[in-house]
Amino acid sequence: MTSSPSTAAGGGPLRVQRDDRGVVTLTLDDAPRFNALGHEMLAALQQALDDVARDDSVRVVVLAAAGKAFCAGHNLKDMAANPDLAWYQRLFAQCSRMMLSIHKLPVPVIARVHGMATAAGCQLVAQCDLAVASENATFATSGIHYGLFCATPSVPLVRNVPAKRAMEMLLTGDFIDARTALDQGLVNRVLAPESLDAEVESLVQSILQKPRVAVAMGKALVYQQRELGLDAAYQLAGQTMATNMMDDAAQEGARAFAEKRQPAWKPAADKA
Amino acid sequence: MTSSPSTAAGGGPLRVQRDDRGVVTLTLDDAPRFNALGHEMLAALQQALDDVARDDSVRVVVLAAAGKAFCAGHNLKDMAANPDLAWYQRLFAQCSRMMLSIHKLPVPVIARVHGMATAAGCQLVAQCDLAVASENATFATSGIHYGLFCATPSVPLVRNVPAKRAMEMLLTGDFIDARTALDQGLVNRVLAPESLDAEVESLVQSILQKPRVAVAMGKALVYQQRELGLDAAYQLAGQTMATNMMDDAAQEGARAFAEKRQPAWKPAADKA
Amino acid sequence: MTSSPSTAAGGGPLRVQRDDRGVVTLTLDDAPRFNALGHEMLAALQQALDDVARDDSVRVVVLAAAGKAFCAGHNLKDMAANPDLAWYQRLFAQCSRMMLSIHKLPVPVIARVHGMATAAGCQLVAQCDLAVASENATFATSGIHYGLFCATPSVPLVRNVPAKRAMEMLLTGDFIDARTALDQGLVNRVLAPESLDAEVESLVQSILQKPRVAVAMGKALVYQQRELGLDAAYQLAGQTMATNMMDDAAQEGARAFAEKRQPAWKPAADKA
Repeated sequence: MTSSPSTAAGGGPLRVQRDDRGVVTLTLDDAPRFNALGHEMLAALQQALDDVARDDSVRVVVLAAAGKAFCAGHNLKDMAANPDLAWYQRLFAQCSRMMLSIHKLPVPVIARVHGMATAAGCQLVAQCDLAVASENATFATSGIHYGLFCATPSVPLVRNVPAKRAMEMLLTGDFIDARTALDQGLVNRVLAPESLDAEVESLVQSILQKPRVAVAMGKALVYQQRELGLDAAYQLAGQTMATNMMDDAAQEGARAFAEKRQPAWKPAADKA
Repeated sequence: MTSSPSTAAGGGPLRVQRDDRGVVTLTLDDAPRFNALGHEMLAALQQALDDVARDDSVRVVVLAAAGKAFCAGHNLKDMAANPDLAWYQRLFAQCSRMMLSIHKLPVPVIARVHGMATAAGCQLVAQCDLAVASENATFATSGIHYGLFCATPSVPLVRNVPAKRAMEMLLTGDFIDARTALDQGLVNRVLAPESLDAEVESLVQSILQKPRVAVAMGKALVYQQRELGLDAAYQLAGQTMATNMMDDAAQEGARAFAEKRQPAWKPAADKA
Repeated sequence: MTSSPSTAAGGGPLRVQRDDRGVVTLTLDDAPRFNALGHEMLAALQQALDDVARDDSVRVVVLAAAGKAFCAGHNLKDMAANPDLAWYQRLFAQCSRMMLSIHKLPVPVIARVHGMATAAGCQLVAQCDLAVASENATFATSGIHYGLFCATPSVPLVRNVPAKRAMEMLLTGDFIDARTALDQGLVNRVLAPESLDAEVESLVQSILQKPRVAVAMGKALVYQQRELGLDAAYQLAGQTMATNMMDDAAQEGARAFAEKRQPAWKPAADKA
């Protein structure tokens, strides 16, 4: 564990913290509304993700939440108050754009899930590259309980979870617990609440030890090639890997391997 | 559990029951032939599924079977008696059309599997949206034992089960037990035989509590978006969700949420 | 278990053995370099796979390895010595071509994994149709530790393993043990080292009992249809199955089924 100085910004529903290692922690901070993804929260997330996308010194993003719940998804109260197709279209377009920004971000995004993650909150977890959950976390695509099928949440859900499990969550709206989420592939690890931060930090440190450019190329490649046929996927991957290999860090890495030493770019303090 | 009056039709190899809640139970009823999917059975299933597709009062379909086996797949005896390419092409086209009708049906289809499900019988389970199995159920894509690779069964199988597991089933033709099927994602739940009906009923009741239109839009969306790239998937899902939200049931659902009450469309007796 | 005479060829880094049943065993045999996939090893594998592709008497390929490790992936030392984009492009193109040859081979390829399988070595396991691992086997996409994201290994990895598990392996480069690999779908079975050969032999015997043509048609179909939409997948699968059914072996298989006897093509000695 490191204890590094960090700067915080905002004051709106999203807390943005950044430490001197390039770790940005985005904390959904609207506990009274269970961190619902209203227009203001979505706009703050979009802004923070856009800032990260432009900032080469950022290395990894942790998406966390304050209060009892992780995120309750969209604000149904606001939606009830605006019975208008164009309003809904804008809302889902705004939300999907934010979700795709996580996907397209050049750095990994780790969800730190400690409580209830429902509807678009569950989608957030599914959309992140990695997810670490407290054993108290619960997950549901619960919109269908109110007559609103979790269509956009289903997009990352079916890309993370086996087909019939995803359909069961979407049709019943029922909660699954953290162990079930782990079994189904929705999260990477489940821990006691008091071990959650240490586990997130361990993943963060692992990523910090890798060259930024290789991670960025790799993340983009994985998601691109997954949508291609096998031949095209191999062609793109081979080209990406050759390009990656020409990078200074990879050259130094390969030499270090040959000389049985640590790459010079590797931080020394990597005991997790 | 409810005990509702139901009407039965048929007398052929398929028993069609329908209760006043809109639950249609299709029971493969040709125990002497282990419910093999011969021309007559396929035609009866197609007819029943077409009827359901046209009937807005149906809410959910349960696919069950009479006798010791769930379904033994195609009738190899008939196939041996008709060594003709055009005959085989018609058979597989007829069967695939029926399978796709399950997929395209606007209501969820739940497989209730109590015994052996082999070849196209295993395919039936894989093709359903949800599946509940007795702990006595067994599953195999066994055609390869007779020199006929389970090609059409492989279509839903690889969309439900991890790649190497599917390939092992297809190449060996060996049975897996119900627990293994659960682990691999082929079924949603495994229960003691005496608890099978209660569990199916619990899923049925969960679906009955949801508005039909949201379920129909959602089921179609999940399967459509799964075949698209991520950007296109989000675009379709967002549009679907906005449209869903304009529906009366979703409007009432959102208002009910805001007012902390049950939606007016929700049946009161939802204690499973 | 059978004890059949076999012929061995080579003397380079790859040992090619072939028994009178049509079982070809390719053994990576460069223990001092942990069976790294250098140009010579890749060329030897390509040659052996091309030979198999042209030889209708081969029924199944086992991919094994000598020494302590299964395969350490690419030779980083060679790569460090050749800092040239065209050199890297040729290397990854050569490697991807070999991997695709496994994929396109008309017979199943079974990985027999007994030790460390890293980077392109882990990719080899993922790319095989089936994989059996010793409980001592370990798996990692470790390139990122040296600044080289395992881009080409990610191609079969994401087609075998759930999304977040694959991303975790690729970003951390950390090892998973054999049980974890089994849970994640990367291998089919995990056994004590002394039981590894018997288990591989059991899969080999199962495949030997199936007609070659049905297996070849089936393997190709599974991978093709998986890349298609559901309607197109069913159309291709139905056509494939009808064609398969016209084959002599399938005709005999169906008759044998109808007459409750073993197909005449089935080897008698099939007690595994």
